[in-house]
Amino acid sequence: MSPDQVAQCLLYVIVALLLAKLLGELAERLKQAPVVGELLAGVILGGGVLGFIRLDNPLHLTASTSALVLLAELGVILLLFEVGLESDLDDFLKVGPSALMVAVVGVVGPFVTGFLVSRWFGLSVPVSVFMGASLTATSVGVTARTFSDLGQINTNVAKIVLGAAVIDDVLGLIILAVVSSIVIDGSISLTKVAITAGTAIVFLVGGIVIGLRLAPYMMVAAKRVRTRGMLTISAFLFCLAFAYIAHKLGLAPIVGAFAAGLILAKTEDQVHIQAGMKPLADILIPIFFVMLGVSVNLAVLNPFNSAYSGSLALAGALVLTAIVMKVVAGLGVLRKGVNRLAVGVGMIPRGEVGLIFASIGWSRRIINSSEYAAILAVVIVTTMITPPILKLVLAKHADKTRHA
Amino acid sequence: MSPDQVAQCLLYVIVALLLAKLLGELAERLKQAPVVGELLAGVILGGGVLGFIRLDNPLHLTASTSALVLLAELGVILLLFEVGLESDLDDFLKVGPSALMVAVVGVVGPFVTGFLVSRWFGLSVPVSVFMGASLTATSVGVTARTFSDLGQINTNVAKIVLGAAVIDDVLGLIILAVVSSIVIDGSISLTKVAITAGTAIVFLVGGIVIGLRLAPYMMVAAKRVRTRGMLTISAFLFCLAFAYIAHKLGLAPIVGAFAAGLILAKTEDQVHIQAGMKPLADILIPIFFVMLGVSVNLAVLNPFNSAYSGSLALAGALVLTAIVMKVVAGLGVLRKGVNRLAVGVGMIPRGEVGLIFASIGWSRRIINSSEYAAILAVVIVTTMITPPILKLVLAKHADKTRHA
Repeated sequence: MSPDQVAQCLLYVIVALLLAKLLGELAERLKQAPVVGELLAGVILGGGVLGFIRLDNPLHLTASTSALVLLAELGVILLLFEVGLESDLDDFLKVGPSALMVAVVGVVGPFVTGFLVSRWFGLSVPVSVFMGASLTATSVGVTARTFSDLGQINTNVAKIVLGAAVIDDVLGLIILAVVSSIVIDGSISLTKVAITAGTAIVFLVGGIVIGLRLAPYMMVAAKRVRTRGMLTISAFLFCLAFAYIAHKLGLAPIVGAFAAGLILAKTEDQVHIQAGMKPLADILIPIFFVMLGVSVNLAVLNPFNSAYSGSLALAGALVLTAIVMKVVAGLGVLRKGVNRLAVGVGMIPRGEVGLIFASIGWSRRIINSSEYAAILAVVIVTTMITPPILKLVLAKHADKTRHA
Repeated sequence: MSPDQVAQCLLYVIVALLLAKLLGELAERLKQAPVVGELLAGVILGGGVLGFIRLDNPLHLTASTSALVLLAELGVILLLFEVGLESDLDDFLKVGPSALMVAVVGVVGPFVTGFLVSRWFGLSVPVSVFMGASLTATSVGVTARTFSDLGQINTNVAKIVLGAAVIDDVLGLIILAVVSSIVIDGSISLTKVAITAGTAIVFLVGGIVIGLRLAPYMMVAAKRVRTRGMLTISAFLFCLAFAYIAHKLGLAPIVGAFAAGLILAKTEDQVHIQAGMKPLADILIPIFFVMLGVSVNLAVLNPFNSAYSGSLALAGALVLTAIVMKVVAGLGVLRKGVNRLAVGVGMIPRGEVGLIFASIGWSRRIINSSEYAAILAVVIVTTMITPPILKLVLAKHADKTRHA
């Protein structure tokens, strides 16, 4: 990376953060979640409008945009780490059954309906399976950030959504294994699927159990060190290590980061770790949402764009399915007195998870350009509409859902 | 950048930080500056030993190493920003004449002797000019960090070295313009050189004067904003903007970051900004020094390596010249009661500036591989020996040099 490329990346960061904070502030004054402004900043800077930051092919980027993508990824990792740090593991266990139900309904529902809708539009069985699968994931980043913006991250609604999103990720792993077996090999190896899912569950449960026992010793060791900043660095490394292992096991890195946060939340240094992570998170989290905005190409939604127009009806039907079936999943909540509509709405965004699905399908030529555009449309609409709707739904029932 | 590339980069960060802190702590316990351990961590992880992180051709990196280079660059930018934040501009103006003398002697001396030594070894005039020029720069990162490690960043010695390094950078700009004219065009355009240098000086002086007037208003505006983390983000953006403009004018980004720090040090929020930057700096600064270690290939110093052995005598002579002439520059200090030896030693490291020089010369085929190896040897030796020698020299005269 030459000095000029470094400078180019600095410029990206400057412009992205500046516009994110300006539009975030505007959103705040219009009584919206700041995250909406940050996503909008990304859309404006992206290829569809100004073209200042380009991510046309996410697998082949310039050095400057690669570096920017890393900062964004660190941002979402820190977001979930922070959410974990602010949470109490016991509360999650309490809402566990509800979260499991919401996750399962929220995966099976969109999968089956997505498959049927695709078949109705004449897509082949393997492609329909892929389209259905692409509707199952929940992008917890947008929802977690919106709850955080609204100061409601410690409500039962937020906990159920976060818990369900983690379970979603494990289920997504199974689905991805099954789908790639069907679409690529034409058959399913149940043993392989069981091993994949088993490893992920063992990591999550085992990692948290072992982590809870080891973390206090790690923190004591960190405090014995004489060089500066050791507590912050230890916590940061712990978070990255969990994110890395999660990725290696096929889970999302953010699920690992969230688990790391839950573990460190139980240590006596929780307050100091939170304070140390805050400035990092303040700078990197907006970069994630800007880049999420950059990666959505609004041209997909343009009915007059001939390249995409063939997919408009399919896209519209899938968007509707994607929204309705996740809202329905909210009905899976078993606990009484919880705002089921808010839980359902919280599960709507597909965000970066959907984008990864779309690019895998596209790069392996499983789906064609109009099917790719349809998944992108689902990602764009579900990501952009969630913060304002969630705010609306939460405001109406704020008194009912606030955690005692 | 694919999820796998992101994960690879996370692994780099984890391993780099972990080893840096382990060896940094070891250095501390051996009563050495922690920066020595961090540099060593880089050497161990680099191509010469483990080959875990490879920077063989700095202009063609993988996406993962590009991202790592950006984090390192943000690290050194934050280091100089922090140093600026902890400093008082007035103190720099007081030692200004001394710093100017040290800088001029420290540029002219190495340039002339480097040229003569190269001619003695039979190099052509243009190449000798380039070799001489490559000895002039001072890499302030290593020195600033060592002063900081030793808790002596606010001494007159540190201020003179820092001031001289900034002036060095402006002089380096003039030299680079002159050298590339001579080596590439075969003639010099004095007007062009004057404009380049003039712009840089106007930016530094004008930027600081205007910045000092505008910064308080910027901070008031930042505090009016309702979204989170605005003070930290504003300071960070201010720093990056100065770094970017400095780069665009041909100066080092760190000079801009240092100026930004000096300006914000005068605002009433100085303490809060420092506190906000600390966690970021704690994590990113070690990454810079690890990457500096990674980028030096110790094989250059191996007398039995046939690819390099032809340059050993030249390299040895240049290393000696590089060290002696910067120590001599310490005599340029005009103020009484300042440890001139410490100032001279503080000017020794060539660090990343020397590497940039070497790669420009190499990629434009101005120098051959043995000349390239000789410059690398200068960079390695001067960077690695400075922290221990500086510690030794400062300890002997600590009482004399501590700022009143």
